[in-house]
Amino acid sequence: MLTMDGVKRIKWINIEEIKRQVDSVVTIDACIHKIRSMSEFAFIILRTGRYLIQGIYEKDRCGDSIEQLKVGCYVKVKGHVREDERAILGFEILLTEIKILSSPQGEYPLNVSHKKLGCGLEANLDNRSVALRNPYERAIFKIQEGVVSGFREFMLKEGFTQVFTPKIVAAGAEGGANIFKLDYFNQEAYLAQSPQFYKQTCVAFFDRVFEIAPVYRAEKHNTSRHLNEYIGLDFEMGYIESMYDVMEMETAMLKYTLEYLYTHYKEYLEILGVTLPVVDTIPSLTFMEALEVLKGKGGKNKYDLEPEDEVFLYEYAKENWGSEFIFITHFPASKRPFYAMNDKEDPRFALSFDLLFRGLEITTGGQRIHDYNEQVAKMKEMGMHPEEFYHYLNIHKYGMPPHGGLGIGLERLVMKLLDLQNIRQASMFPRDVHRLEP
Amino acid sequence: MLTMDGVKRIKWINIEEIKRQVDSVVTIDACIHKIRSMSEFAFIILRTGRYLIQGIYEKDRCGDSIEQLKVGCYVKVKGHVREDERAILGFEILLTEIKILSSPQGEYPLNVSHKKLGCGLEANLDNRSVALRNPYERAIFKIQEGVVSGFREFMLKEGFTQVFTPKIVAAGAEGGANIFKLDYFNQEAYLAQSPQFYKQTCVAFFDRVFEIAPVYRAEKHNTSRHLNEYIGLDFEMGYIESMYDVMEMETAMLKYTLEYLYTHYKEYLEILGVTLPVVDTIPSLTFMEALEVLKGKGGKNKYDLEPEDEVFLYEYAKENWGSEFIFITHFPASKRPFYAMNDKEDPRFALSFDLLFRGLEITTGGQRIHDYNEQVAKMKEMGMHPEEFYHYLNIHKYGMPPHGGLGIGLERLVMKLLDLQNIRQASMFPRDVHRLEP
Repeated sequence: MLTMDGVKRIKWINIEEIKRQVDSVVTIDACIHKIRSMSEFAFIILRTGRYLIQGIYEKDRCGDSIEQLKVGCYVKVKGHVREDERAILGFEILLTEIKILSSPQGEYPLNVSHKKLGCGLEANLDNRSVALRNPYERAIFKIQEGVVSGFREFMLKEGFTQVFTPKIVAAGAEGGANIFKLDYFNQEAYLAQSPQFYKQTCVAFFDRVFEIAPVYRAEKHNTSRHLNEYIGLDFEMGYIESMYDVMEMETAMLKYTLEYLYTHYKEYLEILGVTLPVVDTIPSLTFMEALEVLKGKGGKNKYDLEPEDEVFLYEYAKENWGSEFIFITHFPASKRPFYAMNDKEDPRFALSFDLLFRGLEITTGGQRIHDYNEQVAKMKEMGMHPEEFYHYLNIHKYGMPPHGGLGIGLERLVMKLLDLQNIRQASMFPRDVHRLEP
Repeated sequence: MLTMDGVKRIKWINIEEIKRQVDSVVTIDACIHKIRSMSEFAFIILRTGRYLIQGIYEKDRCGDSIEQLKVGCYVKVKGHVREDERAILGFEILLTEIKILSSPQGEYPLNVSHKKLGCGLEANLDNRSVALRNPYERAIFKIQEGVVSGFREFMLKEGFTQVFTPKIVAAGAEGGANIFKLDYFNQEAYLAQSPQFYKQTCVAFFDRVFEIAPVYRAEKHNTSRHLNEYIGLDFEMGYIESMYDVMEMETAMLKYTLEYLYTHYKEYLEILGVTLPVVDTIPSLTFMEALEVLKGKGGKNKYDLEPEDEVFLYEYAKENWGSEFIFITHFPASKRPFYAMNDKEDPRFALSFDLLFRGLEITTGGQRIHDYNEQVAKMKEMGMHPEEFYHYLNIHKYGMPPHGGLGIGLERLVMKLLDLQNIRQASMFPRDVHRLEP
């Protein structure tokens, strides 16, 4: 019999600890990122899970030959830490041992060691397991982690409970044809288009909840801003007085998360060469006010915003109020889901909003109907059959506080934060109409 | 135009803050959990998202009547905080205002205000949106949140990166018939049985990764320990010397997470009436050693462990080594997946392990094959077609470090931590062969 105690685990070595060991010997596990042979020595760039570390190989100092060493090998090296301002991290490793742990079969089909890959999007995605070895590409997903961490930490501090709700469901929340069908033990089932029904349910007993989980949309759009599977950052909160309470919470969350990125993910922002937007106050226009603005560019009255309208409103908000974010509220009720509460003052409009960021809708949210009779009446008005929503309407029947919430598309937020041109770059393994692999 | 600044958001009032306001007036949003009328006054138990707070209603003191008030109403109350040792939280609220925000249409079909619901599992699950209003039932999901928080915090401290990988996939990872099929724009697709391929891919560039995400198993078993959709806590780590490094990491994680629950979720453990297990060292037996132990109860030699064997091994470990956890390693290779590395010393066995907790398998993990030729050879040996795994084998082709990892079933872990009888109690909205709603 053996025993495990957890103490004997392989410890993770933070780069700061290596820096503190100047002139001592360190052991590093890494991938050979680049080899640059000079006449007397060679630069061997070591890629760890987070950093590029400069190694110096000299024949006389190193006990191992580098004849078998090639880019893509995974190695365990030993060496002296030497301060050097010219090196990427301010130090380099004078290698004394290089033990090869594994060797690749082929040469990378992409320029992994370049600052940016420099290939087209298709080549990047087709060779995704190689592309992500490029420090620029992988930094995108450290930022993704940072956004999730910031969002999560903020939510917990504000008294929200994290929930996990099912993605295999009996009915779609958003309605429409954009839903994936599934054979579930000979029953018809769907993949959830949002956690809407479930997060509303949770408000009845947890007051405030959030979820970080996949969302499925069978949209046939094949654009630079649509994915068929994405990560939704959702929250829902009870005891609101109006949808503005939800918008205030989102504004505070965005401030917190951007601050969080600055504090904990600065090195990745530098690799990506981006400056994060400043959020001070976010302007909010009603849909009708937005139409007025759009008239300025020759737009005509309509019932929804087109992508080019969103871009125009962004530019307008930036120019007039110095904000890269803008809320649009009070959309025509007919264009919003059945669970959206209508404006009591003018029921043609719903208490529902979008948040646009740099010209792209990244959030839809609003106040929901909490009263049973009001929900049943709205369903009937919209030609729906309340009896098909037995479980959903049970929440209303047994009571809920006034509440509202929203959903944020994680990849859209990251895409716009990092000024990426295509949302697929912000998804590790994107799914679109044509792409199911890798 | 309006503006949002995030500062105007509705602040969350922690219970500790209310306690500090003894003799002052506080405002509380809550649900009416229970009303107990005495001759001169009434106890009104207020349920917030986390607590039960005792309110005292006296006609002379309160500006509002309680004639319309019923269990299930959501209210905004005002009152004086008065210390009272007999009250649940050590204080009570002398109510001066009760404003009804919303009223239910029907009476709860379950005994929500009882300590435990006391109904059968079917009634609980059929009326799930009501059942979860019971403080015992909802506490289970605070513990779920705590386990996720502890796991996540440990992983980040140890240098793991959180990743999000697709759940709609072109090929199953575990193989077999237990996979849900999906129509994906006229292509055949599946729901991921595990993030196996993707987390292995991520090791090539992040060294250490973890994921918290749904896992889908189309198993027809309808037992007390199977769900068809569950949350997987997965991790995968590079540069291991053996699978024991993975087991050490899991042991350390379990210690950390249990400590985390004790520190941050104690009040919910009290509601649930449970004592967490102590993890000091976890014994580990090989499969062959386990068979020897099982002979003691008249078991006969075989190739896998049955549920009753797992229970016997638990009892044996508890009696002999005082541990409620036990690792079983070196399973017959034929019973483990194609990506498991075979033991070089005896290739009939795989470097693969299970962790049993209180008689139930909660983890499967092991060392994976990282060498391209070794993986291709094992696939062929097992009658598989390597050409069908082009993208997966690309990871091996372009290099990976030696690595291993594991998957933990969140609901199974929570079920066993809390001594629940059925795994459905540990899933907010469980999915099984017969249950797709609510």
